[in-house]
Amino acid sequence: MTPWIMKKLINEPGDVVDEMLEGMVAAHPEYLRRLDGLEVLVRADAPVDGKVAVVSGGGSGHEPTHAGYLGEGLLDGAAAGEMFTSPTADQLGEMIAACDGGAGVLCVVKNYEGDVMNFDTGAEMAAMEDVEVEQVVVDDDVAVEDSLYTSGRRGVCGTILVHKVAGAKAAAGGELSEVKQVAEKVIDNVGTMGTALTSCVTPEKGEPTFDLGDDEIELGIGIHGEPGTERVDHMPADEITDHLTERVLEDLGTDSGAEVVTIVNGMGGTPLSELYVVNRRLQEILGDRGIETWDAWVGDYMTSLDMMGCSITVLEVDDELKELLAAPADSPALKV
Amino acid sequence: MTPWIMKKLINEPGDVVDEMLEGMVAAHPEYLRRLDGLEVLVRADAPVDGKVAVVSGGGSGHEPTHAGYLGEGLLDGAAAGEMFTSPTADQLGEMIAACDGGAGVLCVVKNYEGDVMNFDTGAEMAAMEDVEVEQVVVDDDVAVEDSLYTSGRRGVCGTILVHKVAGAKAAAGGELSEVKQVAEKVIDNVGTMGTALTSCVTPEKGEPTFDLGDDEIELGIGIHGEPGTERVDHMPADEITDHLTERVLEDLGTDSGAEVVTIVNGMGGTPLSELYVVNRRLQEILGDRGIETWDAWVGDYMTSLDMMGCSITVLEVDDELKELLAAPADSPALKV
Repeated sequence: MTPWIMKKLINEPGDVVDEMLEGMVAAHPEYLRRLDGLEVLVRADAPVDGKVAVVSGGGSGHEPTHAGYLGEGLLDGAAAGEMFTSPTADQLGEMIAACDGGAGVLCVVKNYEGDVMNFDTGAEMAAMEDVEVEQVVVDDDVAVEDSLYTSGRRGVCGTILVHKVAGAKAAAGGELSEVKQVAEKVIDNVGTMGTALTSCVTPEKGEPTFDLGDDEIELGIGIHGEPGTERVDHMPADEITDHLTERVLEDLGTDSGAEVVTIVNGMGGTPLSELYVVNRRLQEILGDRGIETWDAWVGDYMTSLDMMGCSITVLEVDDELKELLAAPADSPALKV
Repeated sequence: MTPWIMKKLINEPGDVVDEMLEGMVAAHPEYLRRLDGLEVLVRADAPVDGKVAVVSGGGSGHEPTHAGYLGEGLLDGAAAGEMFTSPTADQLGEMIAACDGGAGVLCVVKNYEGDVMNFDTGAEMAAMEDVEVEQVVVDDDVAVEDSLYTSGRRGVCGTILVHKVAGAKAAAGGELSEVKQVAEKVIDNVGTMGTALTSCVTPEKGEPTFDLGDDEIELGIGIHGEPGTERVDHMPADEITDHLTERVLEDLGTDSGAEVVTIVNGMGGTPLSELYVVNRRLQEILGDRGIETWDAWVGDYMTSLDMMGCSITVLEVDDELKELLAAPADSPALKV
């Protein structure tokens, strides 16, 4: 008997993404609808006439990313690939065209080679239909420079802050270039690092995507279980938090006097109580360093199926970013 | 090597509740504050002068229950016992007294013997300080009549709907008797049943609270891993959903033409994608039976640490309940 037999609330492994999307539409018809025949959800009222559209997408298995963020002040479209697999260029092209309200579309892309390539092609396809398209690539993971699936840094939980800021700017009537500019400001000022206590099990594979000893954890893990910076003996939460936070702050060069937004993000299998234990230490560290937390998010924002673990995100904010982060947003997974 | 070595983001097991509460206050100072020296969180602005207070509490390990629901239109106070252990009568008495704004306090108690007994004593203590106190006991679990820790049915995820409705009535200026009355209306019309795919591990014990074979699941599970109605071979999500939903609808006697609110609640270790797969089938069943879903909630509302599984809650609603459910609410875990 293996402890890793697949215990999931699913039917056929190949149907999970399709059935999940149907379940989302059934739960949130006021927020989102599905594009016929596609694994793409868009805002219920898309395209919004005259507004810049903000869209995203990527492999499934990271819920509520991305479709949970569809709604006013956030995303207009979200393409869902198969589990941990990029959406196709066709799906992305259709999504971009469907969301364009005449003011152009900003694509928020996480830095994985498949996503970047398929968004490029999808954007070209939409451009041929006279849609003005811009892209930003999020690469907030400070752990490793290159990784499985990625040249350069991976895009992880900081992406949600890009959604929030770009979505708010678009809702406020910003032009495409302005929406892109604030998205890039977030990307320039955000860093994330994660840890896995356990692997995760994809429905198709039915067994762990990587092996991790019972007494070890992986620091700097990617959201698909890509290797991180090191494997170490399991440590108390405070030590883990110290390690992740120091790496992120060092990378950003965040000093005393800075104002930040933080996210303690659960990887999917970690109880909320533990995320708050991590947040306690995170805020203690920031306070000790004279860094002021303007807002602290704690919860499951970008997950890795049933993986146990968390990531810590820090974004340095200025008045412009604070105003956009505080602006109203209304989606299934995030309401401000 | 056991697969169940404790992989948790914690420090000392005995410090988890205290550190979690500190982490919650650090994350949400605009919503909540801690009563000095107690494992009790209250609304940041408690007591609210002239408003009936709605309070709850219970063992920890079910987060965001209950402190995640502190805020306008929801709870005024939430007492946190140790993991899966009732809060003491002293803590409950102090909470009730601290939340009273002069219009009385409604205690929302989940039906577990320890909770009921300690709320009784706590209410008496507060009454001696001239606080008007009423209680309601939630017993929405349709699975078993008596169980470990409980005479009569257990109180589970339907409790969150009691919080929402009672909190809205209190916010609207309802008197204590009126707030109690709407809470009882929810209790009379709500049913829940859950399933566990895996056990859960408490920090103090460090190993599963019960044993479950790799190929079996428990139907009718309690939120502390109390035995349910039966152990069966692991089934596809649709079959599990059919079983749970039929039991709940049968118990409530919900027929064609009824309007309902549903919750697909994650037990803590289950990916959101799977909860949506379950919601898809749940809404299909209701549609087939001519039952109209007025609102569908999907997420982790009342968890059991890292347990994999879900519960399904159905509440029959009328115009009064719909109005109260739709009223504004603003808390860390629930915003309407």
